[in-house]
Amino acid sequence: MLFLTQCFGAVLDLIHLRFQHYKAKRVFSAAGQLVCVVNPTHSLKYAPARCAAAQASTEQGILPACHHHEAVHDPQLVPCTCPLFSCPWEGHLEVVVAHLRQTHRINILQGAEIVFLATDMHLPAPTDWIIMHSCLGHQFLLVLRKQEKYEGHPQFFATMMLIGTPTQANNFTYRLELNRNQRRLKWEATPRSILECVDSVISDGDCLVLNTSLAQLFSDNGSLAIGIAITTSKVHSSEAEM
Amino acid sequence: MLFLTQCFGAVLDLIHLRFQHYKAKRVFSAAGQLVCVVNPTHSLKYAPARCAAAQASTEQGILPACHHHEAVHDPQLVPCTCPLFSCPWEGHLEVVVAHLRQTHRINILQGAEIVFLATDMHLPAPTDWIIMHSCLGHQFLLVLRKQEKYEGHPQFFATMMLIGTPTQANNFTYRLELNRNQRRLKWEATPRSILECVDSVISDGDCLVLNTSLAQLFSDNGSLAIGIAITTSKVHSSEAEM
Repeated sequence: MLFLTQCFGAVLDLIHLRFQHYKAKRVFSAAGQLVCVVNPTHSLKYAPARCAAAQASTEQGILPACHHHEAVHDPQLVPCTCPLFSCPWEGHLEVVVAHLRQTHRINILQGAEIVFLATDMHLPAPTDWIIMHSCLGHQFLLVLRKQEKYEGHPQFFATMMLIGTPTQANNFTYRLELNRNQRRLKWEATPRSILECVDSVISDGDCLVLNTSLAQLFSDNGSLAIGIAITTSKVHSSEAEM
Repeated sequence: MLFLTQCFGAVLDLIHLRFQHYKAKRVFSAAGQLVCVVNPTHSLKYAPARCAAAQASTEQGILPACHHHEAVHDPQLVPCTCPLFSCPWEGHLEVVVAHLRQTHRINILQGAEIVFLATDMHLPAPTDWIIMHSCLGHQFLLVLRKQEKYEGHPQFFATMMLIGTPTQANNFTYRLELNRNQRRLKWEATPRSILECVDSVISDGDCLVLNTSLAQLFSDNGSLAIGIAITTSKVHSSEAEM
């Protein structure tokens, strides 16, 4: 009997997943776009020690310095950049992707344009939704975070980091797009390098920021579909000042 | 001597205004776009009595009802929709624009695409920046508001209302665009009718919302340039679900 109940539950889960996938496809109708259902992970490190110094300096108006050159003996080695766990691993930049996949089980997706479908948006903060995205010969880390910057008022923060150096990151532009209920919100920016802390990017607010009310307007049945596109950057035509 | 000092001050003001205008033109380079420098007004009615009922009902999850049909003897008459002042005026929808111009000195601009340059973003909340925008045979009210929804954490809210009925409003789409420092943020939505409260649109968060940190990233020397475009609406191509 218990076995039958479990089977029935699993079938229901599959139907629900399939339905979510179908809905996301309808929202972002472009043919051939990959829809990726991303489940939440309760963050196990909220204000990690390795970023505390950077956050303190950011609050004092000093540039964040999260590269840890002082702590790393070989300057070619970088610490683990997983936003979820405090991890003692360090290695060369080229093997960060393999480490994130193997040790932290972060999925990787291919394609210039994908739809990131974050489920269970109602879960309490702090919660992260994370995938890697392989595109244009590079790998990117997409982080959606629910966090209470102000107590009792959770907000959603979404950003894209290049698993590469800041110089490499300057060659790209990423776009995050929400589209529902006759409303559309687009954020375009240069990705930050994974060598900078994702925590300080979010605490600086230099990313797509959504209040709970806006997140609800764009959500469908507790899931938020974010269209993602990455392009090689050129100076914005309407931004001559830069 | 005092006269000379005043003259010098006036010349400096003119140079500053010209410089701001020039900067906004550079940010939004499209030729022929009208740049409108909008000075802030300290809001004299923060939670107006005429909207208190609507706000209370919104908090309880009931649809706002700010049409005041019960208070207005002639159902053709609408109350003054100025977001700045509690004003006992009421009149036909067709003369609201004239009332806002003449009594409340709200400027009106022509053009399909304009740049709204809000100055003195640092001023404390509550503060409003307001213009009317005449376009496609209709008049729209653009409101940028700095408000502390959560004490000590001011946010910026920008929305566009049609000076017309909700049915007329459904025929349009407005776009607000911020573009600076290799970052771009776009908000697209159907304008709400001026018959709905601008206060409840903002308290619902159904508008462009900016944290102070994002507002600073998009500001230049204390001024925020918002590109505005209005089009007749069609179903978004990538929103088949609607």
